[in-house]
Amino acid sequence: MKAKAFQDYYPDDLSHCYGCGRLNSEGLQIKSYWEGDEAVCTYVPRDCHTAIPGYVYGGLIASLIDCHSTGTASAAAYRAEGRELGTAPALRFLTASLHVNYLKPTPLGEPLELRASVKEVKGRKVVVATRLSVRGEICATGEVVAVQVPEHLMPR
Amino acid sequence: MKAKAFQDYYPDDLSHCYGCGRLNSEGLQIKSYWEGDEAVCTYVPRDCHTAIPGYVYGGLIASLIDCHSTGTASAAAYRAEGRELGTAPALRFLTASLHVNYLKPTPLGEPLELRASVKEVKGRKVVVATRLSVRGEICATGEVVAVQVPEHLMPR
Repeated sequence: MKAKAFQDYYPDDLSHCYGCGRLNSEGLQIKSYWEGDEAVCTYVPRDCHTAIPGYVYGGLIASLIDCHSTGTASAAAYRAEGRELGTAPALRFLTASLHVNYLKPTPLGEPLELRASVKEVKGRKVVVATRLSVRGEICATGEVVAVQVPEHLMPR
Repeated sequence: MKAKAFQDYYPDDLSHCYGCGRLNSEGLQIKSYWEGDEAVCTYVPRDCHTAIPGYVYGGLIASLIDCHSTGTASAAAYRAEGRELGTAPALRFLTASLHVNYLKPTPLGEPLELRASVKEVKGRKVVVATRLSVRGEICATGEVVAVQVPEHLMPR
């Protein structure tokens, strides 16, 4: 039995994100899982996610790195508090900054693998480094500074 | 009569990009125009482009900054060569790096205005700084290092 993804534990009210919300039928609905100290997500781009012909749209790569990293930040925050995913109160993160380096054009038509590692957990801030590869070759790397969603922005 | 957008001059083979290709029916189809030395793009997010409820998805913001900035890089390269947009050979740019700072949550349901300024044009590299605002309030800023598409990746 496969474990539930980080995103499957998000409360319904926080599950409408275009990138990672399981309730957003038009979105990407990414799924992230722990593999030891790394978080892994695999995503197969749609045909429309093209840049120049044959290669993956950079904005999609940025979106995947963004949502996989904030998901990882959330899971890391639960870990840091010794709590199970999905327990209340929900720990959800927004992106304060996103940096992506596109190392080489990413071929379209293959699964993209994202691997995230947590660089820092400090107060409400988590820093995550993520690399994106195709068939084991790294095509892009990213870093996300994620900040816990402030109380006044949390749905009630 | 409104001027044609930067993206309307792209050759058909380079017009399938999810963010800016006029031939990508599922994509964002953004349009960018010069206003003096700044390039401007206005985009109204779709309802599905949500992050937490009521706010715009950060990956969309990254995508808009990415494509508006590479479009601006292309237009700036034509300007630097004293050429008209659309003249051959085509000058198209890929993103080498993308950096976005999310300054505040961006409200959903309003037009987003992106304003790009060219910081550097040097050889095949153009650096563009872009800010995104809603009703005049800056919600995110970005910087893109764009590099001219190498010959071997250009469609023939």
